[in-house]
Amino acid sequence: MSKPLSDHDRRKQISVRGLAGVENVADLKQNFNRHLHFTLVKDRNVAAKRDYYFALAHTVRDHLIGRWIRTQQHYYEKDPKRVYYISLEFYMGRTLQNTMVNLGLENACDEATYQLGLDMEELEDMEEDAGLGNGGLGRLAACFLDSMASLGLAAYGYGIRYEFGIFNQKIVNGWQVEEADDWLRYGNPWEKARPEYMRPVHFYGRTDHQTDGVKWVDTQVVLALPYDTPVPGYRNNVVNTMRLWSAKAPCEFNLKDFNIGGYIQAVLDRNLAENISRVLYPNDNFFEGKELRLKQEYFVVSATLQDIIRRFKVSKFGSREVARTDFNTLPDKVAIQLNDTHPAMAIPELMRVLVDEEKLTWDNAWDICVRTCAYTNHTVLPEALERWPVDLFAHLLPRHLEIVFEINRRHLEVIAAKYPGDVDRLRRMSLIEEEGQKRINMAHLCIVGSHAVNGVARIHSDILKATMWVLKLKLYKCNNQTMWTIRAPFFSQSIRKPLDQTTCFCLNTWTYLIGIKKEPNKLWTPRTIMIGGKVCVSIDPFGIRRFDNIRVTGFVLQAAPGYHTAKMIIRLITAIGEVINNDPVVGDRLKVIFLENYRVTLAEKAIPASDLSEQISTAGTEASGTGNMKFMLNGALTIGTMDGANVEMAEEAGEENLFIFGMRVEDVEALDKKGYNAEEYYNSLPELKQAIDQIAGGFFSPKQPDLFKEIVNMLMHHDRLVSFHWRCKSRCSAAGGG
Amino acid sequence: MSKPLSDHDRRKQISVRGLAGVENVADLKQNFNRHLHFTLVKDRNVAAKRDYYFALAHTVRDHLIGRWIRTQQHYYEKDPKRVYYISLEFYMGRTLQNTMVNLGLENACDEATYQLGLDMEELEDMEEDAGLGNGGLGRLAACFLDSMASLGLAAYGYGIRYEFGIFNQKIVNGWQVEEADDWLRYGNPWEKARPEYMRPVHFYGRTDHQTDGVKWVDTQVVLALPYDTPVPGYRNNVVNTMRLWSAKAPCEFNLKDFNIGGYIQAVLDRNLAENISRVLYPNDNFFEGKELRLKQEYFVVSATLQDIIRRFKVSKFGSREVARTDFNTLPDKVAIQLNDTHPAMAIPELMRVLVDEEKLTWDNAWDICVRTCAYTNHTVLPEALERWPVDLFAHLLPRHLEIVFEINRRHLEVIAAKYPGDVDRLRRMSLIEEEGQKRINMAHLCIVGSHAVNGVARIHSDILKATMWVLKLKLYKCNNQTMWTIRAPFFSQSIRKPLDQTTCFCLNTWTYLIGIKKEPNKLWTPRTIMIGGKVCVSIDPFGIRRFDNIRVTGFVLQAAPGYHTAKMIIRLITAIGEVINNDPVVGDRLKVIFLENYRVTLAEKAIPASDLSEQISTAGTEASGTGNMKFMLNGALTIGTMDGANVEMAEEAGEENLFIFGMRVEDVEALDKKGYNAEEYYNSLPELKQAIDQIAGGFFSPKQPDLFKEIVNMLMHHDRLVSFHWRCKSRCSAAGGG
Repeated sequence: MSKPLSDHDRRKQISVRGLAGVENVADLKQNFNRHLHFTLVKDRNVAAKRDYYFALAHTVRDHLIGRWIRTQQHYYEKDPKRVYYISLEFYMGRTLQNTMVNLGLENACDEATYQLGLDMEELEDMEEDAGLGNGGLGRLAACFLDSMASLGLAAYGYGIRYEFGIFNQKIVNGWQVEEADDWLRYGNPWEKARPEYMRPVHFYGRTDHQTDGVKWVDTQVVLALPYDTPVPGYRNNVVNTMRLWSAKAPCEFNLKDFNIGGYIQAVLDRNLAENISRVLYPNDNFFEGKELRLKQEYFVVSATLQDIIRRFKVSKFGSREVARTDFNTLPDKVAIQLNDTHPAMAIPELMRVLVDEEKLTWDNAWDICVRTCAYTNHTVLPEALERWPVDLFAHLLPRHLEIVFEINRRHLEVIAAKYPGDVDRLRRMSLIEEEGQKRINMAHLCIVGSHAVNGVARIHSDILKATMWVLKLKLYKCNNQTMWTIRAPFFSQSIRKPLDQTTCFCLNTWTYLIGIKKEPNKLWTPRTIMIGGKVCVSIDPFGIRRFDNIRVTGFVLQAAPGYHTAKMIIRLITAIGEVINNDPVVGDRLKVIFLENYRVTLAEKAIPASDLSEQISTAGTEASGTGNMKFMLNGALTIGTMDGANVEMAEEAGEENLFIFGMRVEDVEALDKKGYNAEEYYNSLPELKQAIDQIAGGFFSPKQPDLFKEIVNMLMHHDRLVSFHWRCKSRCSAAGGG
Repeated sequence: MSKPLSDHDRRKQISVRGLAGVENVADLKQNFNRHLHFTLVKDRNVAAKRDYYFALAHTVRDHLIGRWIRTQQHYYEKDPKRVYYISLEFYMGRTLQNTMVNLGLENACDEATYQLGLDMEELEDMEEDAGLGNGGLGRLAACFLDSMASLGLAAYGYGIRYEFGIFNQKIVNGWQVEEADDWLRYGNPWEKARPEYMRPVHFYGRTDHQTDGVKWVDTQVVLALPYDTPVPGYRNNVVNTMRLWSAKAPCEFNLKDFNIGGYIQAVLDRNLAENISRVLYPNDNFFEGKELRLKQEYFVVSATLQDIIRRFKVSKFGSREVARTDFNTLPDKVAIQLNDTHPAMAIPELMRVLVDEEKLTWDNAWDICVRTCAYTNHTVLPEALERWPVDLFAHLLPRHLEIVFEINRRHLEVIAAKYPGDVDRLRRMSLIEEEGQKRINMAHLCIVGSHAVNGVARIHSDILKATMWVLKLKLYKCNNQTMWTIRAPFFSQSIRKPLDQTTCFCLNTWTYLIGIKKEPNKLWTPRTIMIGGKVCVSIDPFGIRRFDNIRVTGFVLQAAPGYHTAKMIIRLITAIGEVINNDPVVGDRLKVIFLENYRVTLAEKAIPASDLSEQISTAGTEASGTGNMKFMLNGALTIGTMDGANVEMAEEAGEENLFIFGMRVEDVEALDKKGYNAEEYYNSLPELKQAIDQIAGGFFSPKQPDLFKEIVNMLMHHDRLVSFHWRCKSRCSAAGGG
């Protein structure tokens, strides 16, 4: 870094950069040097690349501050309706470049760093991704924050400041190895801790029913410490706030009854409370049902509602600050959007606050609650739906369980009045599932407690309406809000698809290999296949429950980290790459690259570089996808099934830019109903059979002949292999010669 | 805060402040406002007092940076001999005022804050104490850093950045209640994290003896993350560094072999590694022998030695940077001072590095090690001496155990050669104690591995020479270095004394009450008695092992937090205060104040406000005391026994300023040898008997008649009560009418 640039490098820089918008260069350089000295406590003798990144980040951050303060002051004075977007995930990626672009500072910063002898791209590469999300759900939340700031809406993102985001993936000898994502290790210049706005969050305890109302007592308190991150709009001087909560044990935590030696243990036990915000659950579309996760969900909800209500109560009439007491105006001033069911506890928590603390009647409170809350559904996959055991709830949140029961009692009363004697309907539509272990269906809770429910693509919203029992009741309204997230300058996220599709992709790649080897002198279009993604969601050990997905660029493949079979899929891909990339006959005509540690930043590079995007979910399983749009918006053609947002993309972009193939939702349903024979399909596709036999036979990995037999065998006998065959067959014609 | 000052307040401020040295006021105000805006992200509409403190702290800190960088650059270029002061405790207290004074900024800051409508003292009061120490040992370390910076020595403090320092004490209904000292909650403006200088520290594993040397393998790694704090000299432009290490789990920690669901647990288990720097052990002069403590000790030593050796290896000849390879010059360039035996592991660790890693011969390495290290002893109390079980060592630090055994083998060879056949002498002088559980005597290790040993007061050094077996050997040199710590503008620390003395103090106070009540019309000198201190060290459940101390202003009383009897001493004091302070006959002539949460900052206020200081340790038990000097230097007269630094204070200040009374070391020894009858003494002091009877009888606490019977009874039958009687009797005459 400290080595001066060669003349060659300088010329190269100048030629690609230009000098537009550089009026602030002198100021930027001065402030950069000031931050290097005073903030980083370094001189250029000892400064490292990361110090330069931080100096630049602080310099850019300074340009946000005035706008941020003024925006918040403006909201305080004008008191507009505020949007609160509550989400367990905000997959923000990096901030520096986005900030420079939105503030119009990019060219000037580029010139300033160049004049300082530094390379902007190198500095940008020092920034850690804020990987506080798994994929689409989290990236959607991040894109919404960007978009709302750009639209000048008074919006707030509320979530958890996980100390560890989505794990980092290393590929070691072709296998996935996980590392904790210690993204805060070097400090985060984009956040500002706000310990002065710490809020208590209660857990456990019991309810005390008195004549003057219900009290939740004998609780354990964990403090929620907010960290604010500025969210700038695109060149409009608006800077909104994303507030993420971190769990802190109170000072008196665990220090009540202890004996000799217990003091140290009591201090160490603070970790138990602070574990709440320790780590993002790497569960994309899979419900794991752990107490710690439920704690996370209530933690963010409770702290956020305290903030919302405090802000609601302080209104400003002219120059006077007064306390607002009429909660009937809450829906006029507050919109709470629930990103999936993860923050569903906002509904009973708002009821608890209004009824138990603010002493409103149930009916009044319920009317306010429904008019305030809205719910976004992200999936219809049954394994993804949150269904919390009543026992766990009773222990952790006893008052909320009572409230959920009361919501349900009234909800069932309405149904019973409408459909007298229809017990089966009551059972289907109840918030409480009685089969086996009693559970709360959080999607039902969200639907009943909201004034609006939306899916994330038209086909998904239609499926929702057709399959969600409570929505079928037609008492509740379902919208569609396709996840067009256009404002953000870069897009990326992961979407999910089943295991058989991943393997389909591997096998298809292998058939290319076979083809080239068979006709080496034919004019093959050179193709580079990029695959990425992390094995991270629990799978059913008795079979393939669901896996994640493939595409030409960027895929996510998920299962519990360390789970042997799931990781073997990655090994299969890297092994295929080893063979193909080193085959002298194939040469440059086919390359397979596994993108290590696929994440927002990598997607920002890979997506614009792609010519083709594969979006081949089994019709009816992918709610929307957002990566599919990002590819398309960045100029790639799409090969896809009629699923998720692909449907609307075809309409918007014109069918000439998409290659739709394979089964429709109706076809899949019909096939499932009819039944099929996997072996039969297998034998009807000789090219595919050859590929599988070669792979299973250890063709490309002579040192490990049995390595993939297991997984290929498993695939061969799996029911869903059928749809995979179908797709393979269809695609060959759709994609043609590529 | 944001309320403007009244005219009255303004006049008051002006009258006490003046306008000297205010040439920088405009700059300071501008920078204060800049930090409030850009660093705190606040405007004055929403800023709170703590924001103003942080803005001021950052403004003052900016004035340190240039001096800090230049000082370190100077050391790098001149390559002087460096002093490394390794200590498990640095009891720094607050930093803001000390920094302003040392930089000559105090008047200007005072004026600037005044012009901004703020009150400097209020802002100063927002700073958290850095309470990373128990008492004298830690405050000595802090004072040494100040002094060495003022003397312009190239000195470094090395310790642990405990997330929680000495616990905070609340007095609730007269009882001590503990709170975790979450001193970093609001951020620490005085430290700079240096993640780029992170060092690995190894634990556990096994040794592998190969022909080319010994390797320590299969270890568990914890990372040591340094945080640097500037230590400015007094108006000399020198700014030294205190580097405190924080424990971080590596990213791959625990993530090797896990199954479904194990990923989350693996991330949570990082806490186990990071617990190393979680909390200061509140053990003042008591050895607890827990593994976590041994980990702390090795952690700081290993990380620090890596720093020392890296810095040693990079020397600069003229303008060339070269790697220094000749370790024989280490003692010319490096002095390692061990503050008590806590960092004793530096000796075997330095041997390990020199022999196993740098491949020096044992003899050569040992010569270098001894010439580099020096050891400060802080106590001769047997319960305070560190004696680590060999089994624990073998498990945690297997290679170091081998090295200690080898050091001992050679050490005993020398003794055996000098005193052939004297097996008992070998036993006494061994580093390994063989009786019962095998243990390593860390004081012996320090003495053998150092070129200098010092006590902390003349009488203490003399006692050391007379009682420490290894020192008696006269192979090892013992110095004295009385803990005069004069440079620091304020002084404070706690010292320790036994339980009977605390109670002595309570009873003595009670006799004042009796006296006033008996002769209410006599002209009594009004006196306010201030007592403070924390119950925090383990005591022997079968009797009173040791307690802590009393003095007229500031005492420390220690036992395991929560331990009933020990806490009852505090309750006894507060109860006596309740009676005396509310007695209409006594009026203003006697007040008893318990100083809640006694610490550096409180001592800075209380010590200069005191007229009398009591330093009444049983002769031979207090090594030095440093509070005694601080009182004296701040103008208080001293009533004391001939112990610790009192001896030298009498010489320096003149006997007219000290009232020495009570038994000498020889008297105590003679009395112990002769034996005594506690009951007899008790009956010979009718005034005392009356006080005890009244307290034990629940005189002042009618609702809890039995509350103190237990403790008084225990005292009455305790052997050491004798010396307490003696002192009481003597003091009455020495202190006269007060």
